[in-house]
Amino acid sequence: MAKQARAVRTRQALVRAAAEVFAAEGYAGASLPVISERAGVSNGALHFHFASKHDLAAEVERTAADRAQRLAERCRGRSDTLLQSLVHTACGLLLAVVADPVIRAGFRLSGDPSRKDGTRLLRWWQAWVHELVVQAQREGELARDVPADVATTVIVAATAGFEVMGAADRDVLSVERVTQLWTFVLPRLAAPPDHASTPQGPRAPVEQPGD
Amino acid sequence: MAKQARAVRTRQALVRAAAEVFAAEGYAGASLPVISERAGVSNGALHFHFASKHDLAAEVERTAADRAQRLAERCRGRSDTLLQSLVHTACGLLLAVVADPVIRAGFRLSGDPSRKDGTRLLRWWQAWVHELVVQAQREGELARDVPADVATTVIVAATAGFEVMGAADRDVLSVERVTQLWTFVLPRLAAPPDHASTPQGPRAPVEQPGD
Repeated sequence: MAKQARAVRTRQALVRAAAEVFAAEGYAGASLPVISERAGVSNGALHFHFASKHDLAAEVERTAADRAQRLAERCRGRSDTLLQSLVHTACGLLLAVVADPVIRAGFRLSGDPSRKDGTRLLRWWQAWVHELVVQAQREGELARDVPADVATTVIVAATAGFEVMGAADRDVLSVERVTQLWTFVLPRLAAPPDHASTPQGPRAPVEQPGD
Repeated sequence: MAKQARAVRTRQALVRAAAEVFAAEGYAGASLPVISERAGVSNGALHFHFASKHDLAAEVERTAADRAQRLAERCRGRSDTLLQSLVHTACGLLLAVVADPVIRAGFRLSGDPSRKDGTRLLRWWQAWVHELVVQAQREGELARDVPADVATTVIVAATAGFEVMGAADRDVLSVERVTQLWTFVLPRLAAPPDHASTPQGPRAPVEQPGD
């Protein structure tokens, strides 16, 4: 059992180290020896857990999407409306880009031309936003003249773009700036107060997932 | 003179080929022999014009920012209001991501972790949007309660995010989808009709720069 626990810890250390290196250097620029050294394990241990850089990146992307999914579920549990849950999740996800190298790498790999098919986190986010928007439409929370796919594209684009800007200027990824995004999107998105209560921006503390 | 013209053509072919390869493979993944082969020139000719991959990428980024600047100036010349010019330029820029490999590479390199300091096009876009928004504010075209830096961040993030989504799904970068983005941003951005005429989405044909 102790051996199994050690194997789990080694695997987690490798995923975290790989995420840090992928986020900083990109997929093509990431070196497996650098990753194993950063994780504090031997090259042999890395290859015992992951057959290739491709497999390691796929595991980082899968872990990022899993964490994002759990973040979304926690936000959903605490929100009164679907649109509020959307705002909380989107804000929490952008702040997690700063706090969690795995989420950061998930987004970076989504936009990295050298990592083909690395868009798992982006695709998860797009599917999640679309499902929520469709539900919000059904519940009467959405303005009647906003098509679900248009709303989805705008929300996913805005969050993906914040991540790109945040990579160049970390100050962009602050609670204040991220909340301001929603002052643009919500007035168009939300049904007038007669149909449903207009959700507010996120209340502090905003969800910030650990590892 | 014929020799000089040939040198200019060779240089242009190299910049275009490099842009295509950077956009498709990323900075770290791009190979100089692949670029020279695609440009139809020898490796020696490539090295005569560019000392390194770094220099070649810098030239692609500079060319992308120059073309974006010319696109912005043409849009400005044809727009009645500053906000209309903003909408036209942003739409034209996103459509140019599809049509022009140099603009596409300029954006891709801005978000490529393996290309350090490759954010020239993104920084140009951010500075241009900010200047225009400040002018629009001065002219009374902007809603009074929208801070210029907030508007700038939202607009730049939305366009950068469209580019990221467009790399995964080319259909996102259509006139229709890109115009829909503005139906979200403009109502919040523009001053009420009493203060200035509300700009409409882009009229066809939208600006699409060639090479």
